[in-house]
Amino acid sequence: MYSECVSTSERLIESTRELLWERGYVGTSPKAILERAGAGQGSMYHHFKGKPDLALTAIRRTAEELRATAEAVLAGPGTPYERIEAYLLRERDVLRGCPVGRLTMDPDVIASPELRAPVDETIAAVRERIAGVVEEGKRLGQFAPELDGAEIAAAVLATVQGGYVLARAAGSPAAFDAGVRGLLALLSPRTPGVSDQPA
Amino acid sequence: MYSECVSTSERLIESTRELLWERGYVGTSPKAILERAGAGQGSMYHHFKGKPDLALTAIRRTAEELRATAEAVLAGPGTPYERIEAYLLRERDVLRGCPVGRLTMDPDVIASPELRAPVDETIAAVRERIAGVVEEGKRLGQFAPELDGAEIAAAVLATVQGGYVLARAAGSPAAFDAGVRGLLALLSPRTPGVSDQPA
Repeated sequence: MYSECVSTSERLIESTRELLWERGYVGTSPKAILERAGAGQGSMYHHFKGKPDLALTAIRRTAEELRATAEAVLAGPGTPYERIEAYLLRERDVLRGCPVGRLTMDPDVIASPELRAPVDETIAAVRERIAGVVEEGKRLGQFAPELDGAEIAAAVLATVQGGYVLARAAGSPAAFDAGVRGLLALLSPRTPGVSDQPA
Repeated sequence: MYSECVSTSERLIESTRELLWERGYVGTSPKAILERAGAGQGSMYHHFKGKPDLALTAIRRTAEELRATAEAVLAGPGTPYERIEAYLLRERDVLRGCPVGRLTMDPDVIASPELRAPVDETIAAVRERIAGVVEEGKRLGQFAPELDGAEIAAAVLATVQGGYVLARAAGSPAAFDAGVRGLLALLSPRTPGVSDQPA
């Protein structure tokens, strides 16, 4: 009995996560959640206070996963440039977009301080992490000293989030990849003296 | 009689444009459009084949406006770098996001080749225009010859589109501005020889 109870609540959370990613908060009805979860009419209100409460649980879980994935690459092996490269090139389901970023286009999420909080915190945390890697790269002479870590981090994160927009518009991941390659070319550590060599 | 008829159709289009920007396609009901337009029940079907047809007209108009705005800056005065800078820094209602880009997060827009077409065409056209400016800057020696115009253009456009995501998550335009400054710092024309001068 207990385990069945846990499992219904789990199914509700996972179904909500999928639907939020596919259709957003505004486009996800309680009915659609129940149908996907194969759960009965009253089960949402048995386990959660309602759609906002269930959505908050789902968003928090998705946000934690995203943060852990980013941390794994950014704390991984390699130079600062290589870690930012790994973050930008990590395997993504580009045409599905970012399950956290897409929520910012959802008017009801943005209008709710509670629902927006995990989105804001996650994006801010990843940005701060990338800013730290850039500062590390500056100390190692890999990035120009005049670059601002927080600004470069915002550009890195924006390129990913905007890359999804470009890819979804075109119906192909190619535009995402192009944006990432463009940013990496700009970020690429300068090899002093090379341009001074005669051709 | 005729002018009243034109005006109802205009009100329907303009109301749809506003609602698509605020709430997206999925979040915009025919009822909400009629209410905002102050139009009667049957008027949508009198002027349009239905919500998709009205939305297509609205999206096309918004897309044309966006393209014209981008063209005005990118074809404006200044060096290639200055024109890309002007494009990135042009006045924007950052927290409202991009009325065209936000549609890519709309599952029903992406699922419809007809509704996606103006979104795709507009983003592709602006990207091509920026790529041309980058190539021009390469010829003038303002950008490094190894940079790929199409890739840099994708990074520029992605920084703008992703900047909206960052800003809306944070509830403040600051993150958008930071990303733009970060990209501009990376794009900034190199002044050959300066780094070789003794301090």
